[in-house]
Amino acid sequence: MSTRRNAFYAQSGGPTSVINASACGVIETARANRSRIGRVYAGRNGILGALTEDLIDTSRETARTIAALRHTPGAAFGSCRYKLKGLEENKAQYERLIEVFDAHDIGYFFYNGGGDSQDTAWKVSQFADRLDYPIRCIGIPKTVDNDLPVTDNCPGFGSVAKYVATSIREAGLDVACMAATSTKVFILEVMGRHAGWIAAAGGLASRSPSEPPHLILFPEIPFDPEVFLARVDNCVKRFGYCTIVASEGVRTKDGKFLADAGTRDVFGHAQLGGNAVILAQMVKEKLGYKYHWAVADYLQRSARHIASKTDLRQAYAVGRAAVRFALAGQTAIMPIIVRTSNRPYRWKIGQVDLSRVANRERKMPRSYISRNGFRITGRCRAYLAPLVRGESPPPFKGGLPEYATLKNIAVPKKLPAFSV
Amino acid sequence: MSTRRNAFYAQSGGPTSVINASACGVIETARANRSRIGRVYAGRNGILGALTEDLIDTSRETARTIAALRHTPGAAFGSCRYKLKGLEENKAQYERLIEVFDAHDIGYFFYNGGGDSQDTAWKVSQFADRLDYPIRCIGIPKTVDNDLPVTDNCPGFGSVAKYVATSIREAGLDVACMAATSTKVFILEVMGRHAGWIAAAGGLASRSPSEPPHLILFPEIPFDPEVFLARVDNCVKRFGYCTIVASEGVRTKDGKFLADAGTRDVFGHAQLGGNAVILAQMVKEKLGYKYHWAVADYLQRSARHIASKTDLRQAYAVGRAAVRFALAGQTAIMPIIVRTSNRPYRWKIGQVDLSRVANRERKMPRSYISRNGFRITGRCRAYLAPLVRGESPPPFKGGLPEYATLKNIAVPKKLPAFSV
Repeated sequence: MSTRRNAFYAQSGGPTSVINASACGVIETARANRSRIGRVYAGRNGILGALTEDLIDTSRETARTIAALRHTPGAAFGSCRYKLKGLEENKAQYERLIEVFDAHDIGYFFYNGGGDSQDTAWKVSQFADRLDYPIRCIGIPKTVDNDLPVTDNCPGFGSVAKYVATSIREAGLDVACMAATSTKVFILEVMGRHAGWIAAAGGLASRSPSEPPHLILFPEIPFDPEVFLARVDNCVKRFGYCTIVASEGVRTKDGKFLADAGTRDVFGHAQLGGNAVILAQMVKEKLGYKYHWAVADYLQRSARHIASKTDLRQAYAVGRAAVRFALAGQTAIMPIIVRTSNRPYRWKIGQVDLSRVANRERKMPRSYISRNGFRITGRCRAYLAPLVRGESPPPFKGGLPEYATLKNIAVPKKLPAFSV
Repeated sequence: MSTRRNAFYAQSGGPTSVINASACGVIETARANRSRIGRVYAGRNGILGALTEDLIDTSRETARTIAALRHTPGAAFGSCRYKLKGLEENKAQYERLIEVFDAHDIGYFFYNGGGDSQDTAWKVSQFADRLDYPIRCIGIPKTVDNDLPVTDNCPGFGSVAKYVATSIREAGLDVACMAATSTKVFILEVMGRHAGWIAAAGGLASRSPSEPPHLILFPEIPFDPEVFLARVDNCVKRFGYCTIVASEGVRTKDGKFLADAGTRDVFGHAQLGGNAVILAQMVKEKLGYKYHWAVADYLQRSARHIASKTDLRQAYAVGRAAVRFALAGQTAIMPIIVRTSNRPYRWKIGQVDLSRVANRERKMPRSYISRNGFRITGRCRAYLAPLVRGESPPPFKGGLPEYATLKNIAVPKKLPAFSV
């Protein structure tokens, strides 16, 4: 084994507006350590690129293009949702990974993703150990859902939080000014199928009960139509209008997603997605108020133009730390964000063993949700507020954000094909 | 009649992210001419404030607060959708307006809105003439729909255009990076019930057929499901994914809104809004591709954080010009934006008689839509491109935009109540 080996980096799962800043952190730090890291190969479409030996040679990109990853949303090398099975269930896949790594002299494995990806990184490290294949496996945290354990927060979340809080504040002003004669109820549906972090972030826009959003619907609080409608009605009567941030993960008391529980089309098919539509319908039906609704969907997690500078820095920092940890001889760990002070907000990079991250989800504490279940508490606000701080807009050209386009040149294959 | 008289200003119809910049232009210019204009009274909730004598005394706001209107979305004094009927049909309302104006020594009437508002301003000027009541009536253009005639473009449109083009570019990167294994079709529904200006603006993000948005659905082009689905399929096969900007005003061949034509809920009611949902369902049903959709709704017209600087300047300029025209003795006119050069883009303020504006709609020329009906042409791009140029973000505090809150103190009433 040479002392100078190549690195493999892959992006996994849904992108965020700052995941490429982590890629930038990895590649720039590797380039700064050329004596020990050769090339950084990226997996085309995530881990699938490793399995199919479809590697992208990032050394073919200029320093300027790599720097531009900092301000480019999406996943620049392609991503995928693909969870490797257990070591015994699908040994062939792990063998293939090691085979590809070996063929390209890969001694560093950086896997940038959520819980499933950390689990994969951990399994790869175990399997490599078993084969005595020398590789350092480092997970890099990423998820808009903010559901990784141990780390104070997840890169990607702060920016979606900033987008949601900004959007509901802005739309709230729109609703407020017309409510006397027009729309009285507005619903913004946001992501977060299993935890209410993103919906909670909307609450940052509201400095008092009279300010939007008036109500937040969390997946953690079973949805009760009567309580909800009474709240909406009360809010309209009190403030003249009611603005709502609803998590896509809102569930009825029997645990069913609200979005699955509702309407059917003319053919009798269940209606596709969008609990905002169902909530709006309920409001119209029972209270008779004029409503509007918005579904932010991918707009929220790709909105690099309104990314949080704190989030951006942390995304870069975990990428850089991953390479530094690997160079320091560590493996089977993930860099984490450690909050050392809330006022002023201070953070540093720490680390956690992948065995402690894999298959654990971080839930939102009940103490972050107000007793009535419709607002965030002061503790929640204190936790969330620093994460959205700071602006770092991308460069604009002709009025639109100018995002990087990579060449993504493939590394010549050395192995026979492998079917995934 | 004193030489120094008060002004009345009202905001009408749906707000834009820059209508308050027009208000700022009116108020700052009036304040700079204190010898001739006394106070600027704003109508609370638009023209309703005049009818109910609910006037806001803007002189109670500091210069700093008025300046902050430049970066505050919504309609700071409240708006409404309320069209005054014809002069003969509802003479009592016009009489009431003049009575309120007279009671408060109002000699200037500034009405900030779309086509209906310009019609109202014109009628008020005719009625005042008839009564020999001395008042100068100036319309101020505003509409995200860009559908006022004569003026090159409408303040409010450039910012929603910038929002839509930015959002589809960003969401497009998101879809692109996951398309190999996940979502292949993404639909962003945007405003524009009668004209495709806003949908067309999405096209600015696409510099080649391979770039999002791949398809635009215009209200001007009758929707043909088979042609649409064939295009989507072709796009996915060619580029791996397909991103679509769909106007809410898309209509079927028989002239029905697509959003009304489709699905029904379990109670048999027509489904509420959202042709994105219907298009997505069609794609799933006939092509089997995984889809996602977003409905931007109010987010797009309140997104001051991504407003166009060109738009902002023009919004301010038409407000300022309205006051200057009035001071120059003009009445029954509307300031317009005149494009004097495309490269470099240059514009100046002109004017048009209200009689030429009222009840005329500006349609999008067919030459702005590609022959196949799914993209914009070079001519359209040349028209749109300058309107989104320049950034002028609001101040941020703690990571969120800090918008102005006005005191909106009422002027004491002098007249008996009037029921609207």
